Amino acid sequence: MKTLENGSIHLELDEVMPVVVDALKRAGCNDENAQAVATCIYEAERHGAHSHGLFRMPGYLASLKSGKVNGEASPKILTPKPSVLSVDGDGGYAPLAHRKLAKPLAGMAKTQGVAIAALTNTFHFAALWQETEMLAQEGVVGLACTSFKPALPPAGGSKPLYGTNPIAFSWPREGKEPLSFDQASAVMARGEVMIAAREGHALEPGVGIDENGNATTDPNEVLKGAMLPYGGYKGASIAMMVELLAGSLIGEHLSFEAAAQDNNDGGPPRGGEFILALDPAGGLASAEGLFAKMLEQNGTRLPGDGRRAKRSKVIADGIQIPVDLYEKITF
Amino acid sequence: MKTLENGSIHLELDEVMPVVVDALKRAGCNDENAQAVATCIYEAERHGAHSHGLFRMPGYLASLKSGKVNGEASPKILTPKPSVLSVDGDGGYAPLAHRKLAKPLAGMAKTQGVAIAALTNTFHFAALWQETEMLAQEGVVGLACTSFKPALPPAGGSKPLYGTNPIAFSWPREGKEPLSFDQASAVMARGEVMIAAREGHALEPGVGIDENGNATTDPNEVLKGAMLPYGGYKGASIAMMVELLAGSLIGEHLSFEAAAQDNNDGGPPRGGEFILALDPAGGLASAEGLFAKMLEQNGTRLPGDGRRAKRSKVIADGIQIPVDLYEKITF
Repeated sequence: MKTLENGSIHLELDEVMPVVVDALKRAGCNDENAQAVATCIYEAERHGAHSHGLFRMPGYLASLKSGKVNGEASPKILTPKPSVLSVDGDGGYAPLAHRKLAKPLAGMAKTQGVAIAALTNTFHFAALWQETEMLAQEGVVGLACTSFKPALPPAGGSKPLYGTNPIAFSWPREGKEPLSFDQASAVMARGEVMIAAREGHALEPGVGIDENGNATTDPNEVLKGAMLPYGGYKGASIAMMVELLAGSLIGEHLSFEAAAQDNNDGGPPRGGEFILALDPAGGLASAEGLFAKMLEQNGTRLPGDGRRAKRSKVIADGIQIPVDLYEKITF
Repeated sequence: MKTLENGSIHLELDEVMPVVVDALKRAGCNDENAQAVATCIYEAERHGAHSHGLFRMPGYLASLKSGKVNGEASPKILTPKPSVLSVDGDGGYAPLAHRKLAKPLAGMAKTQGVAIAALTNTFHFAALWQETEMLAQEGVVGLACTSFKPALPPAGGSKPLYGTNPIAFSWPREGKEPLSFDQASAVMARGEVMIAAREGHALEPGVGIDENGNATTDPNEVLKGAMLPYGGYKGASIAMMVELLAGSLIGEHLSFEAAAQDNNDGGPPRGGEFILALDPAGGLASAEGLFAKMLEQNGTRLPGDGRRAKRSKVIADGIQIPVDLYEKITF
């Protein structure tokens, strides 16, 4: 760690894990939970996904300190039906549950052809590609979605009802890292809007509306009003489907229910996650044929490769964060 | 049937089934296949979805007459894994396979928690909500997707690679018709662009690009160039996922492979369909809570209700089609 001339704090990538593990433990995590959450934050920073990296630590810490999140959670896995893993997160952060469910879910998908994990009683505050990539690394196709607090209006409406409701999808590749996308149902991820608000940047038009339903490019107004789904009513359909799968179907809160019972301590509300795993059967060679066709066109790249291309720069340059963020983490 | 003053042909809704069944049989369908396809067309017309109704009949008939599609197909269902139905469409149109797989797939989903149907060796030329609503009527959640010939470029590219690749999703409701959406990964369904081309209407900006990659509102130029995915790269991700699920994973053609081997007789290319069925477990009451919240906002309606609201007008007014379309159907 060093303080830069601009007043920011500079960390080497290798410093992220120990700093984060230490902070999480001081806020109430046991080692197992701290390692799981810290790995998520480390991987986000390693891939240049700063909006899901250290930037989230004040929220993680606040919800441990308020007692909302169980830092000593021990997720429990049951099999209520032959192709369903029911995973009770024990009121903890989701990453430890992901570590525990990935292998059994992948194994179930290979045996059964398809399987789901219904993850409940958990707090999700990270990107989803890490859990779908865990599945892809076990040789199965992974799809995950989760809701959050209301941010997006239903089609035709103007008041937040759905969360930003991301979907992540990973496809396994022989001898290569998985193909992955992870996209919010909003035009822009909420974390990016929060960063724009913090840094005082205007948003592109079409990202959101203010609390009166009018278009605005001010991130603070959007955070008070509503974000907009990508692709108009079609993105709203996707967000609605995520509410139903990651809420109703698995027996967890919808976004509006999660917000109603949250203590607003700055961390995520209690919620669930729907995770689907599919045996790709003999389909890997066919998929490589598609990927080759994608890359034949100028200007294309495989989803996930843009993120991975940032690694070498992060490793070389390290990470800069504002001093007040560093102070919150090293409280 | 009567000829209107404007030269169009008017049909009562009740005339659709007999006219279509008769045409399909004369083109080579047995009764079982003819009834299944005709029901699809009837249901599309009944719901005002004309782009998937009688408008598609010349294509259906052409592919029967060319011998590409087997009008006497007898779909075969196997169970290669406990949660997978492998359905060989026997080279026929998809609707008969849908009728045969709906009950066993729903039953499997209830027992296993989740199940998929991998439908291969089939020809899909209809909207997908009919098969997902069949599943919802059996009490399970349905999601279906299929590819077609290349129409959409990959993210960053400008040449068609993915089909318009629709996804349909239906959620069951106690004592009510299912909630359903069915949306192409394109901004606009290809059938709608074809109708605009036929009727000489310009498209909204953003629907497509010409064969040089430039924006255009001319539907004929878009049909020669590329349609665009909804929501930019995020819609392209969805279209890519559909290629992988409805092609690679189930062991069927990708869109570019389907186009390469098609005889271009005007009907659909051979392809597959990925159909996911999920036990909603105890989630129906929670979903009704979401739907009530959606409807609290002015300007909203539940997905599927817009289509259903057209029924009474279609029943009252009947259907108008151009005389040349009528002549092709009653050849």
